[in-house]
Amino acid sequence: MIIVGFDPGLATLGYGVIKKEKGKKPEMIDYGIVSTPKDENLAVRLCMLEKGVKQIIDTYKPDEIAIEELFFAKNVKTAIAVAHARGVTLLTAVKECGQIFEYTPLQIKQALTGYGRADKKQIQQMVKTFLNLKAVPKPDDAADALAVALCHAQTSSILGGAFRI
Amino acid sequence: MIIVGFDPGLATLGYGVIKKEKGKKPEMIDYGIVSTPKDENLAVRLCMLEKGVKQIIDTYKPDEIAIEELFFAKNVKTAIAVAHARGVTLLTAVKECGQIFEYTPLQIKQALTGYGRADKKQIQQMVKTFLNLKAVPKPDDAADALAVALCHAQTSSILGGAFRI
Repeated sequence: MIIVGFDPGLATLGYGVIKKEKGKKPEMIDYGIVSTPKDENLAVRLCMLEKGVKQIIDTYKPDEIAIEELFFAKNVKTAIAVAHARGVTLLTAVKECGQIFEYTPLQIKQALTGYGRADKKQIQQMVKTFLNLKAVPKPDDAADALAVALCHAQTSSILGGAFRI
Repeated sequence: MIIVGFDPGLATLGYGVIKKEKGKKPEMIDYGIVSTPKDENLAVRLCMLEKGVKQIIDTYKPDEIAIEELFFAKNVKTAIAVAHARGVTLLTAVKECGQIFEYTPLQIKQALTGYGRADKKQIQQMVKTFLNLKAVPKPDDAADALAVALCHAQTSSILGGAFRI
């Protein structure tokens, strides 16, 4: 099974692609980012994101897609910008793939480290370890996207796809 | 020129369609809402919104589209939900029409009443008066969408489309 994980963002959307077969360790296929220029207007940036998300899905033809949920307590302006981008990512993912699963930052931390308060560095180390990589994937958004994909691989094998929407 | 105004929302998106010819008063063509069920999941609701926005644009073939910007100071959770919906509305509008203009609530109030602190009822009365209607359009989201369209008709005739993106 191919899983694509998305870490949504307007300036930078991270994606991570893994392969997970029953009884086998997950395997890293690819990771990267889609970025949009800050000086471009919002509608054009959303079109660029849609195109990028479509290309990733067309390329890897995932069986399932996992997307991180937003959690913002502080900056409403940033939250609104990222939510515009996440709306477009979610729409494109559900249209192109259909099997979408959402995870909160807390669920991702718990799935990867068994500990809800793990920091970014601990998560990235776990991504490196789980996928048997030589180094932590860069940039952070791509590592975060692989973390979402791994969270889904682990959670869905336990729950049997209970989070399916 | 046909102008469609959108008042973005996840549960209810309002739309208003007006016709504006140079030197003539704006004329109401149609208004209404697209609503999505609260118990449905977010991705499906975004697909429903996309379909609704597409249908409105296909039906009225607007020359220009005006969309209200979000302004939220209080509830971050609601702001994030509406921003998901607004992202999808903006994406669909720019793909289907290309001429998109955004206005803040303050700009809309000022355009319709010359007064930034006008309340909802005053705005709705101005919509009724400007469009020569027998009653205030219902529901509120549709009246708000007509207000955005009217704001654009007025602003673009002064600025000559300076807000085009």
